[in-house]
Amino acid sequence: MAAFHPLVASRVRLTTPLLPAAAPAAAAAGVSFHRRRFSAIVAAATAHAKTEFDFNSYMGERAVAVNSALDAAVPAGEPPAALHDAMRYALLAGGKRVRPALCLAACVVSGGREAWAMAPAAAVEMVHTMSLVHDDLPCMDDDDLRRGKATCHVVYGEPIAVLAGDALLALAFEHMASVDSYPPDVDPAKHAARVVRSIGELARCIGSEGLVAGQVVDLEMTGSTETVPLDRLEYIHLHKTAALLEASVVIGAIIGGGSEEQIERLRKYARSIGLLFQVVDDILDVTKSSEELGKTAGKDLASDKTTYPKLLGLEKSQEFAEKLLSDAKEQLADFDKEKAAPLLYLANYIAYRQN
Amino acid sequence: MAAFHPLVASRVRLTTPLLPAAAPAAAAAGVSFHRRRFSAIVAAATAHAKTEFDFNSYMGERAVAVNSALDAAVPAGEPPAALHDAMRYALLAGGKRVRPALCLAACVVSGGREAWAMAPAAAVEMVHTMSLVHDDLPCMDDDDLRRGKATCHVVYGEPIAVLAGDALLALAFEHMASVDSYPPDVDPAKHAARVVRSIGELARCIGSEGLVAGQVVDLEMTGSTETVPLDRLEYIHLHKTAALLEASVVIGAIIGGGSEEQIERLRKYARSIGLLFQVVDDILDVTKSSEELGKTAGKDLASDKTTYPKLLGLEKSQEFAEKLLSDAKEQLADFDKEKAAPLLYLANYIAYRQN
Repeated sequence: MAAFHPLVASRVRLTTPLLPAAAPAAAAAGVSFHRRRFSAIVAAATAHAKTEFDFNSYMGERAVAVNSALDAAVPAGEPPAALHDAMRYALLAGGKRVRPALCLAACVVSGGREAWAMAPAAAVEMVHTMSLVHDDLPCMDDDDLRRGKATCHVVYGEPIAVLAGDALLALAFEHMASVDSYPPDVDPAKHAARVVRSIGELARCIGSEGLVAGQVVDLEMTGSTETVPLDRLEYIHLHKTAALLEASVVIGAIIGGGSEEQIERLRKYARSIGLLFQVVDDILDVTKSSEELGKTAGKDLASDKTTYPKLLGLEKSQEFAEKLLSDAKEQLADFDKEKAAPLLYLANYIAYRQN
Repeated sequence: MAAFHPLVASRVRLTTPLLPAAAPAAAAAGVSFHRRRFSAIVAAATAHAKTEFDFNSYMGERAVAVNSALDAAVPAGEPPAALHDAMRYALLAGGKRVRPALCLAACVVSGGREAWAMAPAAAVEMVHTMSLVHDDLPCMDDDDLRRGKATCHVVYGEPIAVLAGDALLALAFEHMASVDSYPPDVDPAKHAARVVRSIGELARCIGSEGLVAGQVVDLEMTGSTETVPLDRLEYIHLHKTAALLEASVVIGAIIGGGSEEQIERLRKYARSIGLLFQVVDDILDVTKSSEELGKTAGKDLASDKTTYPKLLGLEKSQEFAEKLLSDAKEQLADFDKEKAAPLLYLANYIAYRQN
């Protein structure tokens, strides 16, 4: 995967800080910061979307549908019970289901019905969960807290956590390949080819060109005493975070029947928000508490991991995030405004999220 | 997956011992036992195949082709180098490539060209390798010898071994889904649907209905003090061994364009040789040395694992193996004799192999 968005300082000229000064005050005042931010996003994006768009409801409804698909995909209590329990524990631990939402939204903006992309949306979440379970293992990042809960291997032991990850990975592909995963109105003449292409996208973002590659280089850097240069940092993030976000969007576009041009435009959108996601993650790690994040805060600093704030300072990191956000939005300009609204709000959400 | 072949003693009435008394003598005399057995298989199967069939050459040529496909699928030296090295180390460690051979042979007997099934054949070997790498991990079976070489985690460390397994699993699906993996003469109108169905078969045999499920129950049994009942033992073997052999055959049949009846007949063939494979493995574990096996012999006994010889005795295990072999051959009766020869010889090979 080629690097993109080399951080040339002269290109970063936006003045709006990513985290407005008012935000911490609102949080301190006991107001639900998360809800406040959603309202701000709605207000900010209305100018683009023309119609009023209820992002909170949109995300909530998609999360319910995706959770229901995930719940149905892994049988509770059936043998081997320990395996299924561990898979369900990791899969149904909450989370905002950003990747599935991206997949569903990309399908619709590309001309498809949302229901066509429900199975792929569930599949990308399975892959995401699998990567979290394996990355958290004692021999990897050795994390014991994830989404505010004990990690999979803490609850079920290391062997089951390894195997639950493997099973989730396989299940993602099984789910995408199963005829039963799709509504009856998909065009059979085109559908199989779209599914094959989507499976190729999903598979490529996992292995030595995606999640796994990012984790390998991340592990190498963690153990190293040298300062991590920016291109290495971007390699890690493009592979660990951006690759699956890109696949989520592109798969939605393929299943939705988007043109090659549309698919490539959405791929660029996805790459920008992918890197944005990680830059914001790094910023949140230094500006938020563990309780707010639902995971161990400051861990990157404590373990001497390179992050954007450490390399660039907090302000430059926030400017970089703004640049990525505007690049992402640019790619949406030629799509139907109403259909593109969820992707626009999702980009804002990724930029302005608080955990 | 429903159990099959419940071992009813009254059904096992074959008198030919699986390992003829002459065999150890030949081995002791310094004659290559492996080669001798191949000759015996050729002689025994000629009556069925009508034409002379050179099983040694057949397997050798397929192994070369599959190794070349595997070699090309994982770039040597490209970053992240440690990951690619570990994947290649595990993938190219030798092995007889029985699963790919089954896939290729099933494609041909179902009316396809062998080249159509080369990518799926490589994919099933990737999945097999991945399951070996993860099963060997310190937190699992803690094995340090595999195919006569140090296991992946011994050479590359535990984190890389986990990640190499993940990457191999993803690569299997990427390889199956890639258009570039297939020759130009596949029928585009039918090919995508066949690939999707094949991917579904492959995915299902890995997770909670296949390899992973078998390993979970195997781990549970290893830690348990109770005697493992026969149905548990068969569950483990059907999932750990038979499932992927079944997928290998069925995928070949699907890609080859076999009829539903042909696919189901080959599925039955595969289930019989799948269980046969494990019964013979158990027999070899008690009758062979580590050197001959290329892995730690007697490990199942030492770690108090339940095996067929321990549950049934050596002779009854051999009789059971003969029964499974004859069941497998029965399923090949209605196929073209010449095209079915490789599958016939493969069944014999699995029954009579020496490591």
